[in-house]
Amino acid sequence: MAKGTNRVYLLGTVTQTPELRYTPGGLAVLEVTLAGQDKITDETGGVRELPWYHRVKLFGRYAELLAEQLQAGTPTFVEGRLDYRAWDTEDGQRRSAIDVRVDRIEPLNPEGREGRTVTDARGQERLSDALNQVILIGNLTRDAELRYTPQGTAVTRLGLAVNERYVSRGQDQEKTHFIDVTAWRELAEWAGELTKGEPVLVIGRLVNDSWTSSTGERRFVTRVEAKRIERLTRGPGAGGPGAQTVQTGGVDVEEGLEDFPPEEDLPF
Amino acid sequence: MAKGTNRVYLLGTVTQTPELRYTPGGLAVLEVTLAGQDKITDETGGVRELPWYHRVKLFGRYAELLAEQLQAGTPTFVEGRLDYRAWDTEDGQRRSAIDVRVDRIEPLNPEGREGRTVTDARGQERLSDALNQVILIGNLTRDAELRYTPQGTAVTRLGLAVNERYVSRGQDQEKTHFIDVTAWRELAEWAGELTKGEPVLVIGRLVNDSWTSSTGERRFVTRVEAKRIERLTRGPGAGGPGAQTVQTGGVDVEEGLEDFPPEEDLPF
Repeated sequence: MAKGTNRVYLLGTVTQTPELRYTPGGLAVLEVTLAGQDKITDETGGVRELPWYHRVKLFGRYAELLAEQLQAGTPTFVEGRLDYRAWDTEDGQRRSAIDVRVDRIEPLNPEGREGRTVTDARGQERLSDALNQVILIGNLTRDAELRYTPQGTAVTRLGLAVNERYVSRGQDQEKTHFIDVTAWRELAEWAGELTKGEPVLVIGRLVNDSWTSSTGERRFVTRVEAKRIERLTRGPGAGGPGAQTVQTGGVDVEEGLEDFPPEEDLPF
Repeated sequence: MAKGTNRVYLLGTVTQTPELRYTPGGLAVLEVTLAGQDKITDETGGVRELPWYHRVKLFGRYAELLAEQLQAGTPTFVEGRLDYRAWDTEDGQRRSAIDVRVDRIEPLNPEGREGRTVTDARGQERLSDALNQVILIGNLTRDAELRYTPQGTAVTRLGLAVNERYVSRGQDQEKTHFIDVTAWRELAEWAGELTKGEPVLVIGRLVNDSWTSSTGERRFVTRVEAKRIERLTRGPGAGGPGAQTVQTGGVDVEEGLEDFPPEEDLPF
């Protein structure tokens, strides 16, 4: 346990006509930003609109095929998965990011869609009845810790290690995606009890977050805001009493911790 | 166009401890019924609970592995897809059914879940904060037709042909799933305009329906109730002017019509 599940569903408007580019190795890459807004119920039961902008990536022949069809303003459906990347900056700092890797992208027929977008401050269109859903199964990379914002709102941050297996050049490969998940209010109070290694199901939405680091830099992060978290039963292969590490289908959670952004680097 | 998308997510309680059985060919089959209830907003804006019972199927080694773990009352998550079956009865009538074929099933850790189920009339547990979501991309097998119930509520029934490609014994195989989709009220009025062959995205929930046929028999059907329907752009391969049929990735929609339950056999 636990084999990863990693599904993202987005429905938003293409903000700018994307430009096809090629890697030095000749691989076509198409980066598309989708914009939408979600209806959010806040703690008082009020409903407000929360805008989002998420970058999705296509590769290879699929990128080339779609480059023509995805014009600015096109409402578009994406089925994909979260893709974790980590790198070191020139001054030796560890950075990471989450993108959405596209499995399927479908421009919608815009007929009859008048009035379904709002124009943002940069003149880009944002879909007002958007869809933004993430479904993940993974293991916690550390014990959950419940905190409170200065306003007294409960918030729990979870580090989730989500396994991916794939075949590349005839070889079985494995990759772990480190996904930052937050839970708020009642769900946060409950999720504060979760412990390192536990397999969980998370259903939520993809959100953008930005903050100023202690060195004054502006930082951006993509994370999952959980609407629902469920504990899964540990399978027979999970670590028993005395186990120091939990094998998650071949991924060592201890090792994963190294890759995860340090706590102090994050806004709360 | 259109390659099929066919995803089902269910979170419900196992109603009865399932019994593993084997086909004459020796394939293990595990049939599990999950029960839950969805919160539905009706036309007056009121919220009520709609119970559902859906049968999901596992095969082979996965069925054998899970047979031990899925006890009555276990809250369980399923990721799967809709599977269409058609057969002829002994008196030569065409019948069809939709099941959920499991790609992944995960019993939840029941700790802290007290009070999250309700007991039904048969003494079985039903999850009260269930999840029931279906995401489909397919082509319409016929023009949509808007009707009204005797109470004046708008309802549109759509026949959706959803393509599946898979490899079996080293051969590329293709199967088409014929899924019955209903839309109500405002969505029904809009969907009434959709025409045969159009590729659409449908997001909704799986519902049970039963009715008495003209010959007095009790019939049951599983269908998708749409919360959202989006028209997709026709790809370059779709039928142009004068085309009599639309190729959906190799599947002829005309041919599909033969397989679809006759109109008069359905409750409205």
